Parts: sequence; structure tokens; C-alpha cells
Amino acid sequence: MVHEKEVARGLEWRIKVEDGSSNALAPEAGFSRRVLRGLKGLIAGLVLKIWKFLKKSWDLGHSDPRKVIHCLKVGAALTVVSLVYYMNPLYEGVGGNAMWAVMTVVVVFENNVGATLYKCLNRVCGTFLAGFLAIGVHWVANESGEQIGPYVVGVSVFVLGSAATFSRFIPSIKSRFDYGTMIFILTFSLVSVSGYRVDKLFDMAHQRLSTIIIGTSLCILISMIICPIWAGQELYTMMTRNMDKLATSLDGCVAQYFNSNGGSTDGNKESNKDVLGYKCVLSSKASEESMANFARWEPPHGRFNFRHPWRQYLKIGTSLRSCAYCIEALNSCLDSENQAPEHLKKRISNNSLKLSSNCSSVMKELANVVKTMKKSSTIDLLVGEMNSAVQEFRNDLKSFPTSSFPQSLPEAGNTQNKNTEPTSTRADSVSLMDIVPIVTLASLLIEIASRIEGVVEAVEELADLAAFKPVATDKTEENQHTNKIVPDQHKEEETLKTLQKV
Amino acid sequence: MVHEKEVARGLEWRIKVEDGSSNALAPEAGFSRRVLRGLKGLIAGLVLKIWKFLKKSWDLGHSDPRKVIHCLKVGAALTVVSLVYYMNPLYEGVGGNAMWAVMTVVVVFENNVGATLYKCLNRVCGTFLAGFLAIGVHWVANESGEQIGPYVVGVSVFVLGSAATFSRFIPSIKSRFDYGTMIFILTFSLVSVSGYRVDKLFDMAHQRLSTIIIGTSLCILISMIICPIWAGQELYTMMTRNMDKLATSLDGCVAQYFNSNGGSTDGNKESNKDVLGYKCVLSSKASEESMANFARWEPPHGRFNFRHPWRQYLKIGTSLRSCAYCIEALNSCLDSENQAPEHLKKRISNNSLKLSSNCSSVMKELANVVKTMKKSSTIDLLVGEMNSAVQEFRNDLKSFPTSSFPQSLPEAGNTQNKNTEPTSTRADSVSLMDIVPIVTLASLLIEIASRIEGVVEAVEELADLAAFKPVATDKTEENQHTNKIVPDQHKEEETLKTLQKV
Repeated sequence: MVHEKEVARGLEWRIKVEDGSSNALAPEAGFSRRVLRGLKGLIAGLVLKIWKFLKKSWDLGHSDPRKVIHCLKVGAALTVVSLVYYMNPLYEGVGGNAMWAVMTVVVVFENNVGATLYKCLNRVCGTFLAGFLAIGVHWVANESGEQIGPYVVGVSVFVLGSAATFSRFIPSIKSRFDYGTMIFILTFSLVSVSGYRVDKLFDMAHQRLSTIIIGTSLCILISMIICPIWAGQELYTMMTRNMDKLATSLDGCVAQYFNSNGGSTDGNKESNKDVLGYKCVLSSKASEESMANFARWEPPHGRFNFRHPWRQYLKIGTSLRSCAYCIEALNSCLDSENQAPEHLKKRISNNSLKLSSNCSSVMKELANVVKTMKKSSTIDLLVGEMNSAVQEFRNDLKSFPTSSFPQSLPEAGNTQNKNTEPTSTRADSVSLMDIVPIVTLASLLIEIASRIEGVVEAVEELADLAAFKPVATDKTEENQHTNKIVPDQHKEEETLKTLQKV
Repeated sequence: MVHEKEVARGLEWRIKVEDGSSNALAPEAGFSRRVLRGLKGLIAGLVLKIWKFLKKSWDLGHSDPRKVIHCLKVGAALTVVSLVYYMNPLYEGVGGNAMWAVMTVVVVFENNVGATLYKCLNRVCGTFLAGFLAIGVHWVANESGEQIGPYVVGVSVFVLGSAATFSRFIPSIKSRFDYGTMIFILTFSLVSVSGYRVDKLFDMAHQRLSTIIIGTSLCILISMIICPIWAGQELYTMMTRNMDKLATSLDGCVAQYFNSNGGSTDGNKESNKDVLGYKCVLSSKASEESMANFARWEPPHGRFNFRHPWRQYLKIGTSLRSCAYCIEALNSCLDSENQAPEHLKKRISNNSLKLSSNCSSVMKELANVVKTMKKSSTIDLLVGEMNSAVQEFRNDLKSFPTSSFPQSLPEAGNTQNKNTEPTSTRADSVSLMDIVPIVTLASLLIEIASRIEGVVEAVEELADLAAFKPVATDKTEENQHTNKIVPDQHKEEETLKTLQKV
């Protein structure tokens, strides 16, 4: 048997080899055709990939035209600064160091005015300070002779480089002067090291500083004059948008729970998108902080005065996030598989819907306060309504007595009780497990209401710090009865939208 | 009257003048003393501020010595690269462009190896590509004559600058090539613009590339050889630490609720700190993402192979955060003012404590899986236990029947019922409001358990992707009965700790 198998294997092998050789004998034209076909496929794939990439980029630019405008601004600044190099008189003025101007434009030009200003001021100050120190070190090195000189320079570079790098870890320096510290190290080492060769050190330092000032002032001018994007405005828009999102999410979340059986699928999709709006708020911390950092560097613009309390927006952001965490928990608890019986849901639905709509109208009013930058006359009323809704909800829950805890015989006692209850048409014995979703909803709604009070406090603090004016009294009554946007506020919204588009 | 007043004013004025002159006649020593005292106060305040700043810095360095080592590494790299400038032969080799090497070191040297490699590779590639293109543009400009040439350069700078700036907004490019794109714009504009003047363009491009390669290779060598800090290792440590924190928080949170009356204040403070550990997890997204981005650039190191699935850690991070949101809600619901009656708390405490300890032991085991990089043989068992604890908890809740919903007469029916209940010693009529905290606790615990299953899935996916080996079989039995750390794992922990310290 073994022998037979081996023979068979040998045959198989021979046949394979012959197959291979017959393939090799096939006309070469076929091979090159295949290569061509493969190449065509490759190129087609590449073209398709590039096409997709371009389409994605187009969509990106289409959805936010300000990005395209920013790119054109950078291109324009680069082209203008190149003129410094082209035009002879200017070129002679700043010497061969004109490239520092080009470099400054590339490195310093950022998407928003605050970031550009932050980098410009840091660059100028860092360069100035470092140049000053480096010249001092160079003087000491020169005085101490040719042998010790290089050591002086080397040690100073080591010590100052290490110390400045360490300072970048210190939070207070990191948030304000990170870039300046890097530029300090750069300029100090360049000037003090090159000082060993370049004789006209003062000239060099002076030239570098002047080219950097040319570059930075060009950047500042272009970024502030042509369609400026203000970090402060961005932060502010983000805040109001987040408040609106939370209000919509909360409303949608509770409404969806009580309407979970009705509604068309299209409507559901739309409302699902609305309900999930809170997800953006969960991870907004990093961008809020960077925006607030940049906004500090901006001059007064639009409705923001000098020393507008940007840091207060971070506090509002934190309190908004704490609401969002609760909405997250609420949303997932409502999604969970075990649902409360319909009659219980009905019993609680009115109060829950009322409380959630109260909460969301407080939130919307807060968004309005920030949008219009006017103290609201209705906010106290709305908070009062919200609190009374919470109290009503609590009372309602208290009037759901769960008789005789703990109870070891499950249903024996209750059957008697059922008959004494004329109002209850569906009075099945309800276990604690059945009411879990409802109670959780109640508890989280109450918690959300208390967290919204935190947001109210933060916004009121902002109103005090930024000296918001109270609204005109004739509008007060209108506001009290409708939560709709009054015409004036509507206009504000439109200007906001156009600002966002610009 | 008017006249009198004028006279009086004149008198006053005279008196003031005299006063002034008499003051001026006072000994000058007193004034200068006051100035001196003021100066002393100012200097003392300044010294105090500087002292505080230095102390803070010292604490920062003391708490994480790796930061100090990083600074010394940067200093050393700077000093070494300065040698390029000092030593004549090298200086001649790379020409006056040696300063590019200094600049590269300052800009490229980052805290962890991944970030350094990312910047180095981006810098080299960006410079190479841009240099290549710029020479092409320069050639075209030269061919098209002196009049059109500058326009060709200007237009190309504008178009490429704008396009490259736009590409920095595209997420896939932003996460990997952001720095490279900036360097591309920088080099392209510098080379193509300076090409107008510098005759030996090829030499310049070659010199710049070679100096950059000198700088980058120095940075890579120093950052990888002397006490390297790997972004991957950081991400990994952060993940396991977050898992441990969540487990401790969950345990502590539930235990604190049921022990809220006992315990010393010192112990409470300590446990409070433990309970709030989850807060770090809430806002860990940004740092996780940047670490994962940098880790991709790192070569195999330690226990991490080439192509270690770093992105999977982000998935684990997301599922950990979703647990943390629930723990946040749980923690605040337990803090709220209305507390459940003691006897109800007691009734539920055993099951809650069991479930929370099951949840946290699953979490700890997951942390162990990631720490030891070995598939756990007990995880299925632990998850099974957790699920059965959830089921038990549900059943327990089901056996709490809340009789006769809805009920409009609050307490009329129940008083009768109470007497038929011999087992309940404290059978007061309990309203729904009283059981809200308990039910919320239950609901959130069940939700947390289901979210932990999400973490289990993510970790198992990681184990598959990174081909974790199963633990040796002889340890299996030990593991099944104790949740304590086995000696081998303990060793791993210690190496981890020393790695963190280094």
C-alpha cells in the first residue's frame, strides 16, 4: 500500500511539473497582456482612490467654507511675504535673513485669530529674550578667551535648554507660553552657537527680530482683517450649541421612551439623531480648553469686551458635561430590555414629560441668555417651575405606596387587596423589577434637574462677570408666556449663523 | 458771597501750597526710606513667588523623574549638535546650513519615542518631497524667462501652500502627516523663493536634507537609547490603570453607600479618593488618542511586537468611559439627599455588594489580562458569575412585589394588609419615593454589568489581535478560586511600576 501511494505521489508530481512547463511555453504576448491588464487595474484603483479622496475633501470644504478661506489666506500671506525676497530694496534692508519672514508665516498662521496672536506674541517675545541672553553669553565667552569660550557656550546651551524644556511641563507655562519657550530654546542655541562664527552678532539678532516682526504683523493683519475666525466666538457658539443639544436630547429621550411604539421609521431616525446630540458634549473638554486658551489672547471683538471671562465658559462646559453624563445613563437605562408595564408608564408619563420639558426649557433659556448676552427675566421663574415639577414628581412618587416591605410570601396577601381597589382596572401584582425602569427614569430626571441648577449658577456667574444687561421690560411678558424665540433673539441667531458660515 | 468764596479758595490754595512746600522741606531721608521699604516689599514678594514657583517645579520633577531625564536628554542633544557647528571639518561638510541641525533637534525632540519618530519621519519626508518639487518649479521658472519666472514661483507657492494647508484639515492626513505637511509648505516656499537668488540650488537642497538627517538621527538615537519613554507603553499603562481605577471606584462607591454611617474620617477620606478614581477615566479620550497615534510610529519594544493593535486600545478606552459615565451617575444618585430606609437597604445590600464585587473582579481580571498579556482562563467563569449575580439580583427584585398599582387612596388599603404580615417587623408603608435610591442603584449596577461585558469583548478582541497566549494550565485552578494576584502576575506589576518610574 505504501509503495502504491508513493508511486501515485510521484505521478502527481510529474504531472504538476509538466503542467508548469506547458504554462511557461505559453505565448509571451499573453504575459505582457496580463501585465498590462494588471497595471490598468492598479491605475484604475489608484484613480478611484484619489477620486474618493478628492470627493471627501470637496465635501469637507463644502460643509465648512471657512476652512477653504483660511487656506486661501495662508496662500496669500505666503505669496505676499515672498515679495520681501523678490523686491531688492526690502531684501537689502533685512539681509539674507528674509527667509525667517517666510518661515514665520508658515509656522505662525493658525486657523483662528487667538491662536495666531498667541504664536506671534510668543515668537516675538521668545526671540527677543533669547537673543538678548545669547548676546550676553557670547560676550562672556569672548571675554573668557578662545579655550574656555566654547565650554561657556556649550554649558549655557545645555543648562538653559534643559531648564526651558522642563518649564514646558509646568501647567501654567504650558498653557500660555509653550510655543514661546520652544522659540526661546531655538533662538538661544542658534544665536549663541552661530555667534562663534558670525562676527556681526548684533546685526544678526536685529535682522532676525525685524524679519520676524514683518512676518508676524503680516499674519496678524491678514488673519484679523480677512474673514476673521475668533476663538472666543467659536467657544461661545460651541457653548450655546451644546446647551441646545442637551435640551433637545433630554426632551427627545424622554418623549421617545413614552412613545416607543408609535411613529414612522423616518421620524424615528430623525429623532434618534436629535436624541444622540448629547454625545458631542461628552467629549468636548479638550476643544473647549484650547479655545478658551486662545480666546484670552484676542482683542475685543464683536460683542466681547476686553477681559471677557473666557474661563467661566469652561465652568459652564464642565456643568454641561455633568448633565450629559446623566443623560447618557438615562438614555441607556431606557434602552434596556425590561420595560415597565404600559399602565405604569402612562401613570408616570405626564409628570415625566412635564419635568423633562421644564428642564429643557430652562436649558433653552440659558442658551438664549448666552446667545443674546442679556440677563433673562424669566430664568428664575423657569427654575422655580422646574423645581416645583420636581417636587410634584416626588409627591406623585410618594403617593405610589408599595405596601408592606419586606414580604416573604409573594402574592398571598395581595389578592385580597386587589378587590378593595375599585380604580385600578389592571391591578396585577407588580414586582419591584417591573418598576425599575420607571424609578430609574424618575431618579435620573431629578438628578438632571439638580445638575441643570449647576448650569444655571455657572451661567448667572458669567452674566455677572461679563456684565450682561437685563432684557427690556416690554419683552418680559412675552417671554414669560412663550418659550419661543422672540424676533430680536431670532435676529441674533441669524447673525450667529451667518458668522458661522463666514 | 461769590467774592468771599473766591477768597476762601485762594486761602485754601495757599495753605495747600504751603503744605506742599513744608512737605518738600521734610527730611529727604524719610521719603527714600519709604521707597526703599516699598522696594524691599516688592522684592520680597517677587522672591516668595519665585520660591513658590521653584518649589512647585521641584515637586513636579520629584513626582515624575522621567520629565527631568527628558530635559537632560534635550540639553545633551542640543550640546552634541552644537559640535557640528564647532568642529571645522563637519562645518565645511554641511556648509552654513548647520543651523538646520540645531533647529531640527529643538523642534523634533519630544517627550516620547513615538512622537519623536513621527516628527522626524514627517520632517525628512516633507523636506525631501518639497525640495524635489521646488527644484522642479525653479527649473520651470528659469525656462520661462525673467519676466514670467517670478509669477510662476508666486502662483506655485500660492496654490501649493493653500492646498497643503487645506489637506491639514482632512482627518486621515491630520492624524498622521500634520507636521509633515507643515514642513512641506515651509521647505517648498523657502527653496522655491530663495531659488531666485541662490545659484547652487541643488547644493542647498542637499545640504538642508543632510543636516536634517543628522539632527533627526541624533534625536532618534538619544530618545531611543537613554531611558526611552514609549508612547505605546504609556497607553498600555494608562489602560490597565484606568481599569483598576474603575474597579476600585465601583467597589468603593457601593460599599460606601451601605456603610455610610460607620468608619473613621481618615478612612473615609482615603476611600473617597479611591471612589473618585473614575473621574480620570471620564476625560482620558484626548490623551489616549494622541498616545495611540504616536505608538503607531514606534518599532517593536518590550512586549509589543511590530503592528501591535494600538487602535484596539482606543476601543477599550471607549467602553471603559461608557462604564465611567454610569459610575458617575451612580455616585451622584447615592449622594442625593433622600435615603432609603435602613431595613430596605439591608435587604438589598448583600446582593448589591455581591454584584459590585463580581463586576469589579471581572474588571480586575481584565486589567490582569492586559497586564500579563495572557488570555485569562477565568474570565468566562467570572463573567458567568457576574451574569448570574445580575440574574439573582433581578429575581430578588422580582420577589419584592409592590402590590396593587395604581392606587389612588394612599394608605387606606395597606393598614389592613400590614397586620397579615408576621415576618415584617418594621413593615411601615413604604412609598415609591423611599425606594428610589435603591432601585436606581440596582438599575445602574445592572447597566454597569452589561457595559462591563462590552469591555470584556473589547479586551478579548485585543487578545485575539495581539495573539495573547493562554496562561499555563497549572495556574488555572489557583486562579479559579482566588481573585488575588498570583506571584507571577505580581512580578509583572512590579516591573510595570519600575518601568513607570524610569
